[in-house]
Amino acid sequence: ATSRTSLCRAAVAWAPGKLSVEEVEVAPPKAGEVRIKIVATGICHTDDHGLKGSLPNVEFPVIPGHEGAGIVESIGGGVTTVKPGDKVIPLCLPQCGKCSFFYFAFPYTYKTSRFSCKGKQIHHFLWVSTFAEYTVVPEYAVAKIDAAAPLDKVCLFGCGFSTGYGAAINTAKVKPGSTCAVFGLGGVGLSVVMGCKAAGASRIIAVDINKDKFAKAKELGATDCINPRDFQKPIQEVLTEMTGQGVDYSFEAIGHADTMIAALASCNMSTGVCVMVGVLDSGSEISIDPTLLLIGRTWKGTALGGWKTRECIPKLVSGYLEKKFNSDLLITHTLPFAKVNEGFELLRAGKSIRTVLLF
Amino acid sequence: ATSRTSLCRAAVAWAPGKLSVEEVEVAPPKAGEVRIKIVATGICHTDDHGLKGSLPNVEFPVIPGHEGAGIVESIGGGVTTVKPGDKVIPLCLPQCGKCSFFYFAFPYTYKTSRFSCKGKQIHHFLWVSTFAEYTVVPEYAVAKIDAAAPLDKVCLFGCGFSTGYGAAINTAKVKPGSTCAVFGLGGVGLSVVMGCKAAGASRIIAVDINKDKFAKAKELGATDCINPRDFQKPIQEVLTEMTGQGVDYSFEAIGHADTMIAALASCNMSTGVCVMVGVLDSGSEISIDPTLLLIGRTWKGTALGGWKTRECIPKLVSGYLEKKFNSDLLITHTLPFAKVNEGFELLRAGKSIRTVLLF
Repeated sequence: ATSRTSLCRAAVAWAPGKLSVEEVEVAPPKAGEVRIKIVATGICHTDDHGLKGSLPNVEFPVIPGHEGAGIVESIGGGVTTVKPGDKVIPLCLPQCGKCSFFYFAFPYTYKTSRFSCKGKQIHHFLWVSTFAEYTVVPEYAVAKIDAAAPLDKVCLFGCGFSTGYGAAINTAKVKPGSTCAVFGLGGVGLSVVMGCKAAGASRIIAVDINKDKFAKAKELGATDCINPRDFQKPIQEVLTEMTGQGVDYSFEAIGHADTMIAALASCNMSTGVCVMVGVLDSGSEISIDPTLLLIGRTWKGTALGGWKTRECIPKLVSGYLEKKFNSDLLITHTLPFAKVNEGFELLRAGKSIRTVLLF
Repeated sequence: ATSRTSLCRAAVAWAPGKLSVEEVEVAPPKAGEVRIKIVATGICHTDDHGLKGSLPNVEFPVIPGHEGAGIVESIGGGVTTVKPGDKVIPLCLPQCGKCSFFYFAFPYTYKTSRFSCKGKQIHHFLWVSTFAEYTVVPEYAVAKIDAAAPLDKVCLFGCGFSTGYGAAINTAKVKPGSTCAVFGLGGVGLSVVMGCKAAGASRIIAVDINKDKFAKAKELGATDCINPRDFQKPIQEVLTEMTGQGVDYSFEAIGHADTMIAALASCNMSTGVCVMVGVLDSGSEISIDPTLLLIGRTWKGTALGGWKTRECIPKLVSGYLEKKFNSDLLITHTLPFAKVNEGFELLRAGKSIRTVLLF
């Protein structure tokens, strides 16, 4: 079931900086690979990090994009778990099933690629490169989803929604009746709010310096919304006073060292759990006073919400179809693919939560 | 049941530095307080930190010591849970029972004291000041233990043993069949080894630059003992190679920033749990690459092993009496109280695990 090289549109970053929409060649899948026709892709902050050159192991020229959904177009030899026509979500954190890491974590990318443009090989990004009408990924980086799923909506399950929702459900394991604080109300942070609500938290305090995001946070489950700029004292002291002894769970969904420390200091000093969801620029260090942890706080990271991606993302899609949560509310803009740079401008200006690009 | 002021021996640090054995006055307990005749006290590195002035909120002059056991001598008004003659362990992390912190965490000390010497008020240390033949502590900082307990042995349950053993059992929640690494083979680290063994770990890798500690570590349950100085590469790489994907649980029982980071990097990047048991000097910061946590590691602190002290330390003493573990092996030296400075010299030279001082 191999096929010929496809000519299609893709957004190429020739060097750190801006994307240009180009015509690229996408070679057929080799053994163990799957070629996917991408139907929709979200724009995530991590794409912007990669585009700026601040993620490790991203080589230029590169096709970014990692929050996509599509349809299998062709498969290479030996591929057994998907077939042409299947709806799929490509996995930016693949699940190989062979080791106790539940995915190939680093480097961030498939080390080969079927992309070329103007005679040059174009590198893969986060295993999936969804800013291309066709992309070739290894079979272990593909999750087959329900045929009824609307691809222009569930593309968010490839990264943002699953990351935030899972950070609450899997990583923190938020308990019913607990108190949570969520720093940063972008797509990931709002998905954390949804996860906290789904887990039965009784108080969800949403924290952002952009109060325009508060209405959506409340719609999704936040009980309180606070702006650190409205207070003289550090936000961790505000949260500790609001809750008596700090929150049970705190989440940082921004990617700044100062908010990571504030989130850690906001949770109960002996029992609190802080989950670092945001990603700092590559090479950054974060400096903490270890007494923040000494008395018993737990500090954790999460990647793609701790889901075993191939097994769990299809289940999240089923949950969506059963209306267990409404991730559609995260989608503020839908644009044709050609307007990819406009989508990034909305993101950088804080005007969008999620922009979905349609091919 | 109040009593008169006692005149007794105590080790006083008039200023950061050395201890001198002095005759001190210990006033009777006030309401809610208990006066304890200390029978035995261990010497812990935290005493040395306090003596050097590198713990927060320790004021001089001070009577250090926090790993003691004794007998209630008299009680103040309203005290109901202990009576004269009861064997007790004073709690350097009291359990107040009134808040969701399971003890009064910081500041490190009872803000009043019944001690005076040469006309000067002497400050309390870590709530208990066990380097005194008599000490007065609040009732909530006293755990009543089995009358059959040998005080010269179970004094270690006031800090070192409980801290290390609990770090494995409570904080990390080590699972049967798992792999553990323990950095630092002092009294606390060796107690971590005992805790890992009790929890059913199948491999316990003990790490120290002092190979003289390896025999005891093996006796207590370590399956491998390694010296970082025997390797060219960083110890986290050695441990990752030894175990394939890093250990399931790592413990730092030293209190150095570099070993804290090495311990964190030694555990499995997506599922590993690292427990910081050692205490850095006050005011120190630790700088980490957040990608160490990003993929899903958990980093936690522990204080006194996460035990609810008033409830749990008596149970640990019962476990000792039932020979569930042999904490006696931690005691390498027993000295009369007058030789307290000799005990500190043994500690600083790495020649002792635990020295117990007897009054």
